[in-house]
Amino acid sequence: MTTQQSTSNELKNCIDACLHCYQVCTQMFMGHCLESGGRHVEPEHARLMTTCAEICRTAAHAMLSQATVHTAICGACAQVCEQCAASCQAIGDMDECVRACRTCAESCRTMASGGGQQQSTRTTGSGARASH
Amino acid sequence: MTTQQSTSNELKNCIDACLHCYQVCTQMFMGHCLESGGRHVEPEHARLMTTCAEICRTAAHAMLSQATVHTAICGACAQVCEQCAASCQAIGDMDECVRACRTCAESCRTMASGGGQQQSTRTTGSGARASH
Amino acid sequence: MTTQQSTSNELKNCIDACLHCYQVCTQMFMGHCLESGGRHVEPEHARLMTTCAEICRTAAHAMLSQATVHTAICGACAQVCEQCAASCQAIGDMDECVRACRTCAESCRTMASGGGQQQSTRTTGSGARASH
Amino acid sequence: MTTQQSTSNELKNCIDACLHCYQVCTQMFMGHCLESGGRHVEPEHARLMTTCAEICRTAAHAMLSQATVHTAICGACAQVCEQCAASCQAIGDMDECVRACRTCAESCRTMASGGGQQQSTRTTGSGARASH
Repeated sequence: MTTQQSTSNELKNCIDACLHCYQVCTQMFMGHCLESGGRHVEPEHARLMTTCAEICRTAAHAMLSQATVHTAICGACAQVCEQCAASCQAIGDMDECVRACRTCAESCRTMASGGGQQQSTRTTGSGARASH
Repeated sequence: MTTQQSTSNELKNCIDACLHCYQVCTQMFMGHCLESGGRHVEPEHARLMTTCAEICRTAAHAMLSQATVHTAICGACAQVCEQCAASCQAIGDMDECVRACRTCAESCRTMASGGGQQQSTRTTGSGARASH
Repeated sequence: MTTQQSTSNELKNCIDACLHCYQVCTQMFMGHCLESGGRHVEPEHARLMTTCAEICRTAAHAMLSQATVHTAICGACAQVCEQCAASCQAIGDMDECVRACRTCAESCRTMASGGGQQQSTRTTGSGARASH
Repeated sequence: MTTQQSTSNELKNCIDACLHCYQVCTQMFMGHCLESGGRHVEPEHARLMTTCAEICRTAAHAMLSQATVHTAICGACAQVCEQCAASCQAIGDMDECVRACRTCAESCRTMASGGGQQQSTRTTGSGARASH
């Protein structure tokens, strides 16, 4: 497997992790949290869950769009996911969301540090030589 | 004017700047750029314009949602806006977009560095003491 | 004023109504509703408020993008806004949201019934002859 | 299999079809279309592709949010997907997008006509008796 292929796989994995986290956060807040009430609908937790869903969706969009600026957005996404995971763990009974947020945070951190940078070379034609 | 009021004004200004930049980027790409063709629809430029619109919209959403994590998202938004402004300036004939992106970038940088941090104190009840 | 100009004004008004309703729904749910609790965070109401915000934003996006299919999206937006207004009125203490939703619903119904149809003629060059 | 289970499966299938169509439209426009140029970046086609991606994402969001108003949004989504499929077929060399749009349109039409209506009974407690 070439460097470019592994980069492409990392990009695909990160898109999947972001879209999965988006879905889990949205479904759990709109279902489990709203129906449970109490701490599950505390303002800070509710805002984190919905904002996490939103930035995950936006990070996936930037990567699907093959925008080189996806790195900045993935960096922000990693931070929001970490805080959302911590909030979910503190409240309890939200293990699926904790896992989805942590997996997404880790994948986004890799992207933010340049893990997906060869992605943009596909359109310049220099991609093949960019990996050694 | 108290510190809290000025913070609140900065937050409102940043929301307005983000929603304005979102609108200008979307309308200019979908109108002016697509109809002009040529350099205006080069992949890198097109991806920057649409991704800039998306992150501006998401940053506004985080601030409207009163999520304290808006700082991370505003930081990413500032970076994307700067790159979009540079791309628009290089292509030319896109002055309105250059201005909207730069104004938004500056406002988002202020937010990212803590300019809107008292925002969240409104829900904790400690906001009153945050202003002198 | 020509027919085309009045159409263009109607389109601009609808974009503004959608973005205003988006902002009011988001801010009121994430602020007033979450902080008030009780009926304000009942699942059905919470889902309507956030879904209304989302479809308003999407309808505005379709109009800003000058897509002729904005009529279908505006039609759906009008229906969601009507239901959100009814839910806000039933719960009470949400007058600003009731007004924003009703104004947006009315504007979107006009668009859905063809109020903004000349919009697309701008790109075909036949717009001038479309108004008599 | 009970009625409720089959409804739930239909809902899940529709969410998947919407998110798949969103991804295909976004990736193909931002990749294949922008890189191919010519008819692929004609204003009408570009606006349809990006608006289709947006409404698919919004329809998925309404269903993930368990909002009963998802039916109106799915109805609009079906219309946009049909037009996007027709545009992709007319331009050619976009078979994957034609297929994704048609599959999504069909699934959304089923939802719009009430295919997912038992979904909301889960929160009222009457869901158990809805299936015989």
